[in-house]
Amino acid sequence: MDIQRVESRIEELFDLTPDPGGAKRLAYSPDEAQAMRLVAGWIEEAGLSARLDGFGNLWGLPLGEGPFVTSGSHVDTVPNGGRHDGALGTVLALEAVEALDGPFGVLVCAGEEAPRFGAGTLGSRQLVGKLTDEDLAKMRDAGGVSALDVRAEFLESLRDVPQLEDHDPILRVAAHVEIHIEQRRELKDRGASVGIATAVAGPARYRLSFSGATGHSGETRMQERRDALCAGAEAILLVERLARDAASTVATVGTVNVEPNSLTAIPGRVELGLDVRSTDLEERDALMTDIARSGGKKAHERGVEFRSRKLSVSQPTLMDGGLVEFSERVALREHVPITRCVSYAGHDAQHLASRVPAILMFAASANGVSHAPEEDVERRDIEKSLKLLVALMPELAYRRGEA
Amino acid sequence: MDIQRVESRIEELFDLTPDPGGAKRLAYSPDEAQAMRLVAGWIEEAGLSARLDGFGNLWGLPLGEGPFVTSGSHVDTVPNGGRHDGALGTVLALEAVEALDGPFGVLVCAGEEAPRFGAGTLGSRQLVGKLTDEDLAKMRDAGGVSALDVRAEFLESLRDVPQLEDHDPILRVAAHVEIHIEQRRELKDRGASVGIATAVAGPARYRLSFSGATGHSGETRMQERRDALCAGAEAILLVERLARDAASTVATVGTVNVEPNSLTAIPGRVELGLDVRSTDLEERDALMTDIARSGGKKAHERGVEFRSRKLSVSQPTLMDGGLVEFSERVALREHVPITRCVSYAGHDAQHLASRVPAILMFAASANGVSHAPEEDVERRDIEKSLKLLVALMPELAYRRGEA
Repeated sequence: MDIQRVESRIEELFDLTPDPGGAKRLAYSPDEAQAMRLVAGWIEEAGLSARLDGFGNLWGLPLGEGPFVTSGSHVDTVPNGGRHDGALGTVLALEAVEALDGPFGVLVCAGEEAPRFGAGTLGSRQLVGKLTDEDLAKMRDAGGVSALDVRAEFLESLRDVPQLEDHDPILRVAAHVEIHIEQRRELKDRGASVGIATAVAGPARYRLSFSGATGHSGETRMQERRDALCAGAEAILLVERLARDAASTVATVGTVNVEPNSLTAIPGRVELGLDVRSTDLEERDALMTDIARSGGKKAHERGVEFRSRKLSVSQPTLMDGGLVEFSERVALREHVPITRCVSYAGHDAQHLASRVPAILMFAASANGVSHAPEEDVERRDIEKSLKLLVALMPELAYRRGEA
Repeated sequence: MDIQRVESRIEELFDLTPDPGGAKRLAYSPDEAQAMRLVAGWIEEAGLSARLDGFGNLWGLPLGEGPFVTSGSHVDTVPNGGRHDGALGTVLALEAVEALDGPFGVLVCAGEEAPRFGAGTLGSRQLVGKLTDEDLAKMRDAGGVSALDVRAEFLESLRDVPQLEDHDPILRVAAHVEIHIEQRRELKDRGASVGIATAVAGPARYRLSFSGATGHSGETRMQERRDALCAGAEAILLVERLARDAASTVATVGTVNVEPNSLTAIPGRVELGLDVRSTDLEERDALMTDIARSGGKKAHERGVEFRSRKLSVSQPTLMDGGLVEFSERVALREHVPITRCVSYAGHDAQHLASRVPAILMFAASANGVSHAPEEDVERRDIEKSLKLLVALMPELAYRRGEA
């Protein structure tokens, strides 16, 4: 295992397509294809066969026809992204399979990041049958191009990488491990190099609408107003207060739309976009009930009508408890400080978990920064993560053989 | 005096260029020109000479070369505007001068409403020298056309109305009276048909900026956030609370701009547009100091940087106290229920007041609606307003002769 190679490969990926200060390899873009091609070369260097599946996912296959244990992450990024997000788990997987030399493979999933199409984990969700071509055809980027069309271009541009022949490659995967950079700063505070996810929160999105009455900003007396923005401001603070009091839920008002949005008019209508992430469905539902009840009551007192509409709700994923314990035991043996954690962001491993035994682990973030160039992981924590991965993959292959 | 003619002329203006349900005669538009032409005809019917000045204001001149007392308002409207705003005062002036037959004229000011160019009272401010051609050249409508260019088109399209020959027509005006529909519902509650303005608030506009830190809406713990929108929401409610407690000030946050305005990101930057109207400069300044101090402190507690920047500040106008008392005495004599009030919106008479003795009066609104088709005045209150105007104009001419 060569930790300097791990670091230099991370830099090589980071430098491929620079965005001022950061990386930019959007889902199914030529930039992601370029990164996939680079990784395909590393897969061959490691003695595996690089293969592309019909969804744009890149596989590193070991010799033979039997089951194998995979590791990997993704190589696309958000705009102005950091060097470790996706890349770290991809490069660590390459290092581990080269060191192990056996029934171990690499799986790099395509289009994990959401900014381009408003939804991510495109490759992994297609792989497990959660996302269809019809779904992709409906997703559009800011230029109006569909995800289905760019996937075709993506596959076409990677014709030099041989195609995977398996119809359902996931059938041969005995287990999968994804290592990802932590996206907050919690593990270091808890003395851990690695976090193992017990659950992944399901995002739920809502539109909160407030209908009051517009009016002249000078001539409408304060006590006569039905100001939709003041009602919205109360809801923004209510959301924050409820989420602060919650144990397993975070909530964010990220978007605001005001009508008429004029300096001389009282806002008559306001729409807020609310994102709620929770690993505890009961807590999430209680929070939304509170928002509807208290928010509605406060708005009503001002003569403002309040409505909450669900935009999308996905369920939290509970990761396999047996695998979590199993990983903890291996980490203990290997002297890798590990702790349990929860992911509030979506990851490929959570979707792969619906078809194969899957483990989602986080390498401790040095500073808590995510989706920005300052994102960082200490070398010591990269070493610990790699050590755990190299110990865990054979155990998973063995365990699978036992079962 | 013919109250039915007053009402039918109001309807004729209202029906000229309908906007779904309302009127639409934007500043210096062909629609305003059409209304001016209609009024020019009524001026001639009343036995006066219709003349257009170089700013687009329409004059109705009595015979002779001496001083005269004018009345009038405006005929442009906001989009989807009501039937009385501007039109009422214009039509009442016509009715009064025709009944009086003497040194009495009409003055209909151009471009009073602000929506097209973000600023109004264009004609009256040019007339008194407060607004220059250079200023007009800098004002642009949504299509990027300058107010100076559309004024030229406006004058060209009204070439059939003779030009005023006076260089400085205001020199002959002995006094001016504007009657306008009330833009709130206060006079009726106080048992008055007419309100007389003692002051007109000066609008002050500010940009409140909040700089926090953006971040992943799922992965950033609530207690680690520097959410600029939550800081902005506190400021919105602070502005409301302070204005509710103020005696002579109203304040409105009318615009919101959020960055990145994404459902999956914590708002890192927020800008609020604040409009403050007051007749009490000390109170206004105290309110702004409170907003800066409390708003800044609260934002600071969340790690959010707060800045307040002045966009424009105009001083309140105090109307002539002697003329207010004088008008009250005439109203008392004529049995017209009158009360003193303050205008929180700008009007032509407030600007004309810088050059001539001017009175700004409001006809009681039936329902408090303004800048919307439902705007209404009861016939009884139109009659009372006209009665007062017809009594007041000769008194003003007489008073002027006395002085």
